[in-house]
Amino acid sequence: MFVLVTYDVNTETPEGRRRLRQVARICKNYGVRVQNSVFECVVDSVQLMELKFKIGEVINSETDSVRYYNLGKQGRDHVEHVGAKPGLNVDDALIF
Amino acid sequence: MFVLVTYDVNTETPEGRRRLRQVARICKNYGVRVQNSVFECVVDSVQLMELKFKIGEVINSETDSVRYYNLGKQGRDHVEHVGAKPGLNVDDALIF
Repeated sequence: MFVLVTYDVNTETPEGRRRLRQVARICKNYGVRVQNSVFECVVDSVQLMELKFKIGEVINSETDSVRYYNLGKQGRDHVEHVGAKPGLNVDDALIF
Repeated sequence: MFVLVTYDVNTETPEGRRRLRQVARICKNYGVRVQNSVFECVVDSVQLMELKFKIGEVINSETDSVRYYNLGKQGRDHVEHVGAKPGLNVDDALIF
């Protein structure tokens, strides 16, 4: 399934920037970073649990916000990009 | 339908912060801001066109990135929040 992860963290602090880097590193194993704090992942249900667990270990749940949007199997068909920095195709990123 | 708008802009510049405020103001007419640059909107197809048109007028398409994710009618059922600042319910925000 196609899952969008959006992460809100205060990047004005070194700790916030560090956590964002860590979340990006985790998500890169499942998909791609399409915006500074938006990650598109392609996962099955077990991988989604893993992903949530790993992110949960990194974030500060008192200050940071993470949202998971499950767009289903055909999720990519429902994405439209406007402006700079179009996101990589998740499958391409996994292949190369 | 439930549409997620994610907006990537450099907020280190006053112009970037201004554009983010403008996008937030536009989206507030259709839904709520759930993270700093993530907006959840409930729109019909005409409103979605309006929303895209208005945002298109505000952003700098050479430097900013906007992504629209259409989660369909039951989109809210596919959202999970973790951590701080849980988002408002879009319908609540429209009612009050």
